[in-house]
Order: sequence, then C-alpha cells, then structure tokens
Amino acid sequence: MSHADEIKAIIERRIEALRRRDAAAANAALDKELVAFEVAGPLRLPAEQATDAATTQAWLDSFDEGPTVTMEELTICADAEVAFCHSLNRIQGRRVDGQSVDVMMRSTLGLRKREGEWKIVHGHTSVPR
Amino acid sequence: MSHADEIKAIIERRIEALRRRDAAAANAALDKELVAFEVAGPLRLPAEQATDAATTQAWLDSFDEGPTVTMEELTICADAEVAFCHSLNRIQGRRVDGQSVDVMMRSTLGLRKREGEWKIVHGHTSVPR
Repeated sequence: MSHADEIKAIIERRIEALRRRDAAAANAALDKELVAFEVAGPLRLPAEQATDAATTQAWLDSFDEGPTVTMEELTICADAEVAFCHSLNRIQGRRVDGQSVDVMMRSTLGLRKREGEWKIVHGHTSVPR
Repeated sequence: MSHADEIKAIIERRIEALRRRDAAAANAALDKELVAFEVAGPLRLPAEQATDAATTQAWLDSFDEGPTVTMEELTICADAEVAFCHSLNRIQGRRVDGQSVDVMMRSTLGLRKREGEWKIVHGHTSVPR
C-alpha cells in the first residue's frame, strides 16, 4: 500500500467511526499532542480537549442521524514519515433536538508516522467568513 | 541546513516581502497549483487568483503601514520532499483609509520539494467563528 493509500484508509476509518458515533475509535487516529484549529474558538484547542473521547462522544451523542462526512477534492501529499492532506468536507446529520445539519467545511490534516503508524498531529477545520 | 530550517527561511522571506509590499517576491514561494483556503470565501480560492501577483499587490497597496506578520507557536514537520507547518499569525498594519488592522489568524501550510526547491502547494488560513 502506498503512503497515500495508508493515510486515506486512516481517514476513512475515522469517518466511519464518527458515523457509528464511536468516539474512542474515531480518536484513535489522533496523536496525543494534536494541535487543533477548530471551526469554533479558541484559536487553538488544547490537545487534551481535542483528543478527549468523552468530549467527542458528547458531540456525537447530540446526533440521532449521522454525522456523515463526505470528502470532496481530497488531496494527499505523503513522504515516508510526514504527510498532509486537504479536502472539502460535507457534514450531514440530524441533531437529537430535530435540527438538521448540512455544512461544508475546509479540512487540512498533518500526519507523522511514529513507530510504524500514521497519526494525525495537526487538524485545521474552518468555514469561510 | 535542515529541511525545517529551509522552510522557515522561505516563510520568513515571504513575510518580509509582504512587509515591503512586494507581491511578486511574496508569491514566488507559491506553487502555481496552490490549493488555497482563505479567511474569506469562497470555500477554495482558484489557484490562478491565489497566486496572481496583481491581486496580491492590490491587497498590499491597501496598506500604508505594514502589513507585518508575527508568527507564534510555529511548528514545522518536514521530511525529504513533503512538509507542513502551522502557526498563529498576528497581522498588523494600517490601511490607506486610516483603518488599523490587528488580527490573529490560524495558518497551516503544506509544502513539496520540486526540482530542489520547496514550494507552498497548500495554504489554509482562518479565524475561529
């Protein structure tokens, strides 16, 4: 499998875990020192918060359909131990309060291979102003 | 010079060129096929617009002081031919209409080494909602 194929598989596994609302499996791709720039503030989310399964689970449990993530224009640039990728991600679902969600976001991920495994060490998600 | 030092030098040269309001020099770091996610819409800025020196020059010429860019928490992950970096960038200056600018942005860059030279192939800039 090429480096890019390995990374694509990791991202797809994470998306599949989110769809099942399985926070622990989704966060398994995240490095413990993740530097996270999220859609909402602060400028930089502390790593312990960004990688915390309970926080992710609470967000996932606010959905009763989805969330599904559909990647468009995914581009992966990978060397032996460093990689990044970017895509336009459509997030769809329905909140437990009945509110439907359908938004497009820009996503950039930075990855490092550590002890033979790719980990997401940086995530930048935004919507344009 | 390490890969990370080479990349730091390129970013600092670009920032210095912006401060001089020299769009051609600033854009020399950008790959022609740059995938740009900018603070303002659209979701993805067309490469020809994101790399166009005249467009950048018009933006720079809207300043009569700066713009200066101060990077905080710069982290560079670089392999032989692929690299990414992220930082919190403070942009300061004064517009020709007298308006002062002082904003913090999140910046992520993706780079590739092509024919011995690092080029910025992806840029993601945002402010949190």
